Amino acid sequence: MENLQVRRVAILGFGTVGKGVYKVIRKQQEEFPYIIGAELEIAKILVRNKAKYSQEVEETILTDTWAEIIADDSIDIIIEVMGGIEPARTYILEALRAGKHVVTANKDLVAQHGHELLDTASQNNCDLLFEASVAGGIPIIRPLKQCLAANTITEVIGIINGTTNFILTKMSQEGMEFQDALALATELGYAEADPTADIEGYDAGRKIAIMASIAFHSRVTFSDVFTEGISKITAKDIRYAHEMDYEIKLLGIACNTPEGIEVRVHPTFIPKNHPLAAVSDSFNAVFVHGDALDDAMFYGRGAGELPTASAVVGDVIDIARNMQNICTGRIGCTCYKSLPIKPMAEVKSSYYLRMQLEDKPGTLSALAGVFGENKVSIFKLVQKTRDNDTAEVVIITAPVKEKRIQEAIKTFSQMEIIRKISSVMRVYD
Amino acid sequence: MENLQVRRVAILGFGTVGKGVYKVIRKQQEEFPYIIGAELEIAKILVRNKAKYSQEVEETILTDTWAEIIADDSIDIIIEVMGGIEPARTYILEALRAGKHVVTANKDLVAQHGHELLDTASQNNCDLLFEASVAGGIPIIRPLKQCLAANTITEVIGIINGTTNFILTKMSQEGMEFQDALALATELGYAEADPTADIEGYDAGRKIAIMASIAFHSRVTFSDVFTEGISKITAKDIRYAHEMDYEIKLLGIACNTPEGIEVRVHPTFIPKNHPLAAVSDSFNAVFVHGDALDDAMFYGRGAGELPTASAVVGDVIDIARNMQNICTGRIGCTCYKSLPIKPMAEVKSSYYLRMQLEDKPGTLSALAGVFGENKVSIFKLVQKTRDNDTAEVVIITAPVKEKRIQEAIKTFSQMEIIRKISSVMRVYD
Repeated sequence: MENLQVRRVAILGFGTVGKGVYKVIRKQQEEFPYIIGAELEIAKILVRNKAKYSQEVEETILTDTWAEIIADDSIDIIIEVMGGIEPARTYILEALRAGKHVVTANKDLVAQHGHELLDTASQNNCDLLFEASVAGGIPIIRPLKQCLAANTITEVIGIINGTTNFILTKMSQEGMEFQDALALATELGYAEADPTADIEGYDAGRKIAIMASIAFHSRVTFSDVFTEGISKITAKDIRYAHEMDYEIKLLGIACNTPEGIEVRVHPTFIPKNHPLAAVSDSFNAVFVHGDALDDAMFYGRGAGELPTASAVVGDVIDIARNMQNICTGRIGCTCYKSLPIKPMAEVKSSYYLRMQLEDKPGTLSALAGVFGENKVSIFKLVQKTRDNDTAEVVIITAPVKEKRIQEAIKTFSQMEIIRKISSVMRVYD
Repeated sequence: MENLQVRRVAILGFGTVGKGVYKVIRKQQEEFPYIIGAELEIAKILVRNKAKYSQEVEETILTDTWAEIIADDSIDIIIEVMGGIEPARTYILEALRAGKHVVTANKDLVAQHGHELLDTASQNNCDLLFEASVAGGIPIIRPLKQCLAANTITEVIGIINGTTNFILTKMSQEGMEFQDALALATELGYAEADPTADIEGYDAGRKIAIMASIAFHSRVTFSDVFTEGISKITAKDIRYAHEMDYEIKLLGIACNTPEGIEVRVHPTFIPKNHPLAAVSDSFNAVFVHGDALDDAMFYGRGAGELPTASAVVGDVIDIARNMQNICTGRIGCTCYKSLPIKPMAEVKSSYYLRMQLEDKPGTLSALAGVFGENKVSIFKLVQKTRDNDTAEVVIITAPVKEKRIQEAIKTFSQMEIIRKISSVMRVYD
């Protein structure tokens, strides 16, 4: 193969993912001419401190100056793996306006400003791809946009945060309490020093917002997502869940209903025979229901240097193929609808409640009365323990609107015979 | 949206999948302008007997004459869902030569003549897509060609035949024997009147050949695939498998090794904690290992009217987008290598053997001697039953080349103290 064109890329950021991208491109160097009909060359790597990386990378390609990259017309593709909103957003917008194509792994940015970026890409006939922003190495954006394009997708449910899935797996399989499992995750490097974004479901919230937008063809941003974290889950809740043939997972759930899009992240009881229930440790999985497809699931590594780089470089290859065929911008934003977001109060779900009750006649009848007044049907009620004058009961309700269960809980909290509402979690069924 | 271009399709065949395609296109009619920027219209449906379908479909689009379709220059895309080699092959070649793009769900044809079809497509700057030919609704061809293009893929393992997976699930979960489970599958419509292609692994063999070609960038056809079916598996083997924490699944396995491509279909002991072990009933799943990706799995409906149509119409949408962007033929054949196929005799695997031995001193030592002479290491040996003068033993070997185990079995068959070799199956580890 002679006289091949060379597609030149710049990598912004050289953290875990940036290093992975560098390694994958170098490793596949000989394959690109066959795969894309062109060479692929790393032209520049943008870092803050060049000296820090001079042992790992040829010094000539390191730069600490964005202006050097944006001014270089020979650079075709920008790979943004810095993370955070700024300066990533500004760099990407400038790159697109300069006619450069962009690949990003930045879920925070895509979930918040994705549509601004996609609009700018479209105006400049550029590609903006972001497969790595959701579920790392697992192909999900492209399947949703292309393979499943013949479907009306009604449901996307994901285990899309490896840190929390690792913690819940340890709690489930080894009976650990949350704090101990979190400590272990931190020790093993699965949890960051400040684990808030993972634990509280913000990370998963960004990813489900991105998937909901694409699956339902309507703009959904992170601010539309209801989030609830996993820090209140106890080993006891998980034991009770097992006794009823459930696992507890932190799920990102997006549903397209006639009354609007439901989009939320919360700990969820999920039946043990559901394929998502078996997704353990730091693995991720996304479950999709479409009207033609029926059920499908995509499973794999949701994070990590090389899995994430696999998705990033897959996008780079796609862009290079588009350049080769003069069809960049081939598939841009697919949000051609404006569907409302359903308020969380209107979302229907079954619920698990664990409560400490005064152990005397009439208590259950009073409890059932409050449920009845709020139109909450009880699907199952089990007394778990009796200790002195306190009984612990577990209740599974029939599906009911969030606002009704919240009303019932408000009333319970004012009743003396109800000593404590220990847990409230949603049940997927 | 006014003055939109209209892309016209013809459907060849109106069986289960053809009807599904018709339904999905009709159902999504309003969406196509937004998804592809053009209208999509069913121009013709080719059937043998027009009268048979005149109640279901407008008579004007039914035809029994291929010449009418091939001569119609307004038809852009041919959807081949007739099945079988001829006349499907001839029709597709003629269509491509006439500049028409083709979508096919025909695994028999793609596994045997795929490269002829792809070459012809390429010569005519046409698209030939076949996502539905493997694992029905599950996106796997496009993920392999695009999303995972940055990987050196070393392994593709699939449960890619729903009929046999249904049968094995019944045997595993309900202790049924093979013949009873097959009868049930036939009764429920999961098995065809002549179930040979499913039961003997030919259907799975065609699909693994197609996936191996794409994953390893080298031509693999059905004739390269070693196949062994499930009819010899007994409920007892499955019970013994469970006791050692395995499930038995009919797997299509393709490995890219330095000595060549291994490609085979056979019943396999797979550890219970492997994600494929939990794939039950008629569901399909494909497990992929790549150097960057690590492990990923794609799970869903491997057959059926609408799931298969989901994949077919997804391909049609892709072609229509290519037409819109004047980039048809964007991704053609990706087999740019010529890797050898490893002979089955050289393929290494662990083995499960169930044998009936004469129950007297010296038998085990003779058995072990034969294994030793053939360089087969025993990983585990368990005596299961003793009945009169016969002992049943189960043996799991260490990984060893196929030819060595076959040599050992040949010797065993001539030894009087070995009364019967009841089962021989490969173990994935």
